[in-house]
Amino acid sequence: MTRLSEIREDELIAKLVDLVPTGDAAAGPGDDCAVLDEGGDVLKLLKTDALVEGVHYLKQADPRKVGWKAVARVVSDFAAMGGVPERFLVTLALPGSMELEWIEEFYRGMGDCFEKFGAVLVGGETCRVPEGSAAVISIAATGRVERKYLVTRSGARVGESIWVTGELGGSLSGKHLTFLPRIDAARWLVERFKPTAMMDLSDGVASDLPRLAKASGCGFEIERKRLPLTPGCSVEEALNDGEDFELLFSLSNDTDVSALPDAWKRDFPELKLTRIGRLVKAGEGESLSGGWDHFG
Amino acid sequence: MTRLSEIREDELIAKLVDLVPTGDAAAGPGDDCAVLDEGGDVLKLLKTDALVEGVHYLKQADPRKVGWKAVARVVSDFAAMGGVPERFLVTLALPGSMELEWIEEFYRGMGDCFEKFGAVLVGGETCRVPEGSAAVISIAATGRVERKYLVTRSGARVGESIWVTGELGGSLSGKHLTFLPRIDAARWLVERFKPTAMMDLSDGVASDLPRLAKASGCGFEIERKRLPLTPGCSVEEALNDGEDFELLFSLSNDTDVSALPDAWKRDFPELKLTRIGRLVKAGEGESLSGGWDHFG
Repeated sequence: MTRLSEIREDELIAKLVDLVPTGDAAAGPGDDCAVLDEGGDVLKLLKTDALVEGVHYLKQADPRKVGWKAVARVVSDFAAMGGVPERFLVTLALPGSMELEWIEEFYRGMGDCFEKFGAVLVGGETCRVPEGSAAVISIAATGRVERKYLVTRSGARVGESIWVTGELGGSLSGKHLTFLPRIDAARWLVERFKPTAMMDLSDGVASDLPRLAKASGCGFEIERKRLPLTPGCSVEEALNDGEDFELLFSLSNDTDVSALPDAWKRDFPELKLTRIGRLVKAGEGESLSGGWDHFG
Repeated sequence: MTRLSEIREDELIAKLVDLVPTGDAAAGPGDDCAVLDEGGDVLKLLKTDALVEGVHYLKQADPRKVGWKAVARVVSDFAAMGGVPERFLVTLALPGSMELEWIEEFYRGMGDCFEKFGAVLVGGETCRVPEGSAAVISIAATGRVERKYLVTRSGARVGESIWVTGELGGSLSGKHLTFLPRIDAARWLVERFKPTAMMDLSDGVASDLPRLAKASGCGFEIERKRLPLTPGCSVEEALNDGEDFELLFSLSNDTDVSALPDAWKRDFPELKLTRIGRLVKAGEGESLSGGWDHFG
């Protein structure tokens, strides 16, 4: 008898998707969002995500920030595909003892993020969990991306360079509740220096980079001394802490990146952009383990 | 300080939707699904729904049936708008001690329902709740409905007749896990005798009929002796038990319903169809309270 705590999330998902019809999605389970191709120049994106009290936020956390985070995590997934968010649904599974004021502040926090990114709430549900159970907040959302701008995890090739935005590590000290999803940076990239593969860093480079490399049929090498550390963080923390919600992406060697640093500095003077390594042949390079595993 | 257990779900939702941008949905919070009008003859439907262990199913319930129910509840909501389901995402928030076999059987149950109704799974997430917390299963889905077939809760008018499919009451003895969403019946109705308002009976007639009447700006009267009781159930149980997942709908007096009973019997010989009352002026008729309230 296998228990959930004994299996990695990626392995679990791979097992489960074989049990049900998965249909026609252009990118489905395993990428940041499901991508639906219904013809035309614009693809639909679909995403669901959950926050659990005591796991993704603490009971005493500011509910307005929790609301922001619940929406921002999903916005970050749309950014990772090169897209933008559109419409949201929220399911709150809460104990009956929860204070109405908490829920109202949570909604205001969601509203802050909707307004920032031009998204709207179109529905949802509220239901009860038994007293003593953790609250669970589940978000579902639609987004869109122009066909020409879509980036998945699987398009990287051997020899390409690997990049990250921002600084890594230490998110638990606050950034995990207040981060700004990299929609603007992602849109800028897909329009000017289209990445071959991209994802958002939700579980840490140590967990997420092997996913991108594997999806692309590659291995990878990191230059640890180049990692952009959050002040006060170690390399290990930058690799493993998770919830950075920065962009991790690869650029083709055919892309002329000589103009990238200056153009980036002009348009994103406050945001770092760092080349941290390169993709190598599958089975070569290094292996990384660690990062955030949902059942570890 | 107000606690969630002191407020009715409908009142809560009304309070909350004022706090966030809700945008352009043709029908949004308060109807069975959100309806998105992007032009053209076909409208998009969006729905999210959750099952909580110990509330919507028991820990010892057959996981394959729980999987069926998780999907079937949402299919039933699409039926209630006159539509059909398309694509699903599932979020499982589970304790680490959960057995893998349970999850696999749950997925097989979802798969049974996807295959029955031509839907597919396109993504999802699995995350951990603290040990001892209730499992929460959250489903998000897209559907579609031809513009001409869309039915909301708000189109009923004074004097119209009120109908239900099937038998009511006693779902907890098993039907709540094995019910068949009334997609076929709903599609048949919208094509032949288009209801003016429709919803699915998830919380019981006592809770749901006042919602339909209120959304339509009407009151209502029920003929209790006409209620189609599940064998062994009382009128009170038929009104209050909930989770019947039958269709509740109104027909205009301009609709010639004389042909309805015979046509129905021919196409749905196993399924009852019963006129149970009529819509009256707002403030007149009877009041009903009871049914299933999520925080009651």
